[in-house]
Amino acid sequence: MSTLIGLLQEVLQESQLSTSESVRGLHSQDESYHAPILPEVVVFPHSTEDVQSILNIAKQENRPVYPYGMGTSLEGHIIPTTDGISIDFSEMNNIIEILADDMLVKVQPGVTRDQLNKELKKHGLFFSVDPGANATVGGMAATNASGTSSVRYGIMRDQVRNLEVVLANGSVIHTGSLAAKSSSGYNLNGLFAGSEGTLGCFTELTLKVYGIPEQIVAGRATFPSVDHAVQAVVQILQAGIPVARCELVDEPSIQKANEFSDTNYSIQPTLFLEFHGNEAGLKQDVEFTKEIVKEFGCKEIEFEKDTAARNKLWEARHNLAYAHVHSSPGKKMMVTDVCVPISKLAAAITHARSVVDQSRFEGGIAGHVGDGNYHILVMFDRDDPEEVEAASKLNEEVVEFALSVGGTCTGEHGVGLGKKKYQQKEHGEALQLMKVLKQTFDPDNRMNPNKLIN
Amino acid sequence: MSTLIGLLQEVLQESQLSTSESVRGLHSQDESYHAPILPEVVVFPHSTEDVQSILNIAKQENRPVYPYGMGTSLEGHIIPTTDGISIDFSEMNNIIEILADDMLVKVQPGVTRDQLNKELKKHGLFFSVDPGANATVGGMAATNASGTSSVRYGIMRDQVRNLEVVLANGSVIHTGSLAAKSSSGYNLNGLFAGSEGTLGCFTELTLKVYGIPEQIVAGRATFPSVDHAVQAVVQILQAGIPVARCELVDEPSIQKANEFSDTNYSIQPTLFLEFHGNEAGLKQDVEFTKEIVKEFGCKEIEFEKDTAARNKLWEARHNLAYAHVHSSPGKKMMVTDVCVPISKLAAAITHARSVVDQSRFEGGIAGHVGDGNYHILVMFDRDDPEEVEAASKLNEEVVEFALSVGGTCTGEHGVGLGKKKYQQKEHGEALQLMKVLKQTFDPDNRMNPNKLIN
Ligand SMILES: Cc1cc2nc3c(=O)[nH]c(=O)nc-3n(C[C@H](O)[C@H](O)[C@H](O)COP(=O)(O)OP(=O)(O)OC[C@H]3O[C@@H](n4cnc5c(N)ncnc54)[C@H](O)[C@@H]3O)c2cc1C
Ligand SMILES: Cc1cc2nc3c(=O)[nH]c(=O)nc-3n(C[C@H](O)[C@H](O)[C@H](O)COP(=O)(O)OP(=O)(O)OC[C@H]3O[C@@H](n4cnc5c(N)ncnc54)[C@H](O)[C@@H]3O)c2cc1C
Repeated sequence: MSTLIGLLQEVLQESQLSTSESVRGLHSQDESYHAPILPEVVVFPHSTEDVQSILNIAKQENRPVYPYGMGTSLEGHIIPTTDGISIDFSEMNNIIEILADDMLVKVQPGVTRDQLNKELKKHGLFFSVDPGANATVGGMAATNASGTSSVRYGIMRDQVRNLEVVLANGSVIHTGSLAAKSSSGYNLNGLFAGSEGTLGCFTELTLKVYGIPEQIVAGRATFPSVDHAVQAVVQILQAGIPVARCELVDEPSIQKANEFSDTNYSIQPTLFLEFHGNEAGLKQDVEFTKEIVKEFGCKEIEFEKDTAARNKLWEARHNLAYAHVHSSPGKKMMVTDVCVPISKLAAAITHARSVVDQSRFEGGIAGHVGDGNYHILVMFDRDDPEEVEAASKLNEEVVEFALSVGGTCTGEHGVGLGKKKYQQKEHGEALQLMKVLKQTFDPDNRMNPNKLIN
Repeated sequence: MSTLIGLLQEVLQESQLSTSESVRGLHSQDESYHAPILPEVVVFPHSTEDVQSILNIAKQENRPVYPYGMGTSLEGHIIPTTDGISIDFSEMNNIIEILADDMLVKVQPGVTRDQLNKELKKHGLFFSVDPGANATVGGMAATNASGTSSVRYGIMRDQVRNLEVVLANGSVIHTGSLAAKSSSGYNLNGLFAGSEGTLGCFTELTLKVYGIPEQIVAGRATFPSVDHAVQAVVQILQAGIPVARCELVDEPSIQKANEFSDTNYSIQPTLFLEFHGNEAGLKQDVEFTKEIVKEFGCKEIEFEKDTAARNKLWEARHNLAYAHVHSSPGKKMMVTDVCVPISKLAAAITHARSVVDQSRFEGGIAGHVGDGNYHILVMFDRDDPEEVEAASKLNEEVVEFALSVGGTCTGEHGVGLGKKKYQQKEHGEALQLMKVLKQTFDPDNRMNPNKLIN
């Protein structure tokens, strides 16, 4: 038994530590194509003090740590690239306090979004960020996740009011307050959100929540082409209609969704839309939207206020990645994640489609198009070097285009291992500053090394 | 002539540099109570290259620099506390590009909000952040300003999509992209927004703008007490009514407004409200609001869709600080600026009123209460030590209360010199991290020294 394990055993209960092959295996890879690497040991802290003890031992034994939420990230974020400790936060999953009057919730990092929403519902509230996986709030804050409703409610960074963070040196800080806004000190909330475990471990989060809207209307609109659909989106946004969700799903993806989610949606480029508001306002929004989509050749538009049908619709959308995975057993998933200015979205998707068509892959397109963020889902054989190269090339071409029009290589999934190669091109001189920042916060490079920038 | 001036004259035109007593005087103080200190020289850059040259000379001659927008900040932000260069950005005031399709605008830092809105209006757009002074966008980004419509559209940090920044070492970085969201690299946009000129000089800003809403309705509701008004606000927010502006003005402030702005509003605690949306939705919002305010004893509520009456109303609100200043010639203004969680707002304002009543000052209360942010405006004699002490004590008591309920010492004005003493208490261990951060970005402490944290 290594000194490391011995020291960890001194501060943790037996059930809070595992060196078993299977548990280490579960912490060796995420849900994407990146190759697995086993951690030395997996620990399950129960408290901030546990995390401090773990970090102190990591320092003493000169080992890196790899924070782990649910392992659903898509760019190798949680892979232990060198011997070290995977810190699994799943047992720190208490909803500490619902501050309904302040529209805030205090939670531990291992709370999942489903768990949180189930509880919030009792108070007439909901948490707005909804990645397609049942991720933890800690993981979501660390990747700056977003989702279908970010076009209306913002991204994960916008929801973070305060974080308790254990730094590499074991000290504990809080990054914000309960106030809705502040101009005091430097903005640490925003800096830690999206830091991918490279600057510290989140042990408590205070997050913004919202009142469940008086009325919700969801619908599907089908278009003669993806391009028509995208043009309609641009028009909807420009008309100032406060759309709450605005998702594009192309034909191959609709087909996969139908197979996986047992739906019967017509196989055409489709926008999944949702509106939140009061009854009268919604009615006007919906009418206006109908007018707009018709201008862009929409042949079928169906709205439903019925909760079951609405849930079915969003379930189908949320399960899209799993639908692709399911249809290609044995293969691995690569998902592009660029985000471009809305004015360039139509051109970007046209370009992406041509890149896919020229590749060996089928490639479904889906995306949070209201934000200019879209994904190409590609299933490929990780053991076939040619497939790997072809998938990487596709990803690269899509990123190149996005950067050339002022976009970003990752709208929501984060950098991890997979997007590191684009950081210099995207950030230029600023990357140097980011590196210095990392070095300052974590001089021994102990926090999730090799991710994001180094 | 000093070497410093000589070197600056080599890179700048004659009109871009001044050592005159009057120009230096104008750059020696802001609009608040902080005592003036003259800079050595004032320079007026025209380009990013000018700023780089100035910073390189500052380095060579070992002088600090003090970025200066419009000098309307309220905590001594722009005061040259040690010999050095005041960099006035007013001549870098081009609106570079309006990207209407992307709801973005690229501007130079010296553009003022009035100038910007005048231009945007031609495109059916507006810029949402509206401090009560005609500030520059550079200054607003540097203080993370906000205003009456932040309850709906967010604060300055939320509008910053990309900044071009000249760092202390003279290098130029960009902090973001044109994409609506990104999980790439560390979040530098948020870090530089609110950095008060202590981390770098902004030379170009890409900011979010919004479509002018289909309909705007504004109104005034009067209440039997400030407490009733605040309770009504909490209820409006909790009902999920998407109020666009929600301002509290107490009796002394209404009186001052009437005198200064030639209005005839009844002298009672008043909420100034505004709603943005489509016609049908607004109608329902307004009706719902009327019901709520009645529950809290509102005796008079008047709505106006008429643009002139609406403008008059907001002009009166915006000029409130000037109304106080005007009514006390020779005196100086101290403005508290705490922000508390909404659930604590009523208690906080009750406490604030009692602190004012026990002081020697009249003190008007006004605030962006939809965000939990409010101000007490106190006019006092800066040359009378007793008055200074009394005003400081009042400010301190209000801050103490706010911090004790999880609030912040400054919701929007920033730290500058005046709020430095509260930083340790508010940020605790995190302050150390902020100091390290400053040191890393600006090792020679050249950028606006003695502000914010050191
Ligand atoms: C089917 C599918 C659909 C998806 N759809 C979306 C989507 O729509 N939008 C989107 O944004 N993402 C999406 N994702 C990606 C993924 O869900 C998000 O990245 C999510 O935020 C990861 O959360 P997690 O709990 O699984 O974190 P993990 O994958 O376990 O970790 C992610 C990162 O966070 C760090 N981390 C975790 N916990 C902590 C902590 N307590 N303190 C500090 N750092 C920590 C880790 O070190 C790692 O760098 C999808 C993934 C799948 C599989
Ligand atoms: C009557 C009145 C009402 C006000 N109401 C509000 C309000 O409602 N909300 C609010 O938030 N504030 C308000 N303020 C305060 C003030 O308007 C804001 O702080 C504003 O953001 C300051 O902008 P400015 O251009 O005057 O900047 P300045 O005062 O010149 O500078 C402010 C800070 O920004 C830095 N800075 C300026 N330009 C740059 C640049 N290009 N690069 C880097 N740093 C730079 C300076 O060094 C300084 O630290 C009010 C002030 C007055 C007098």
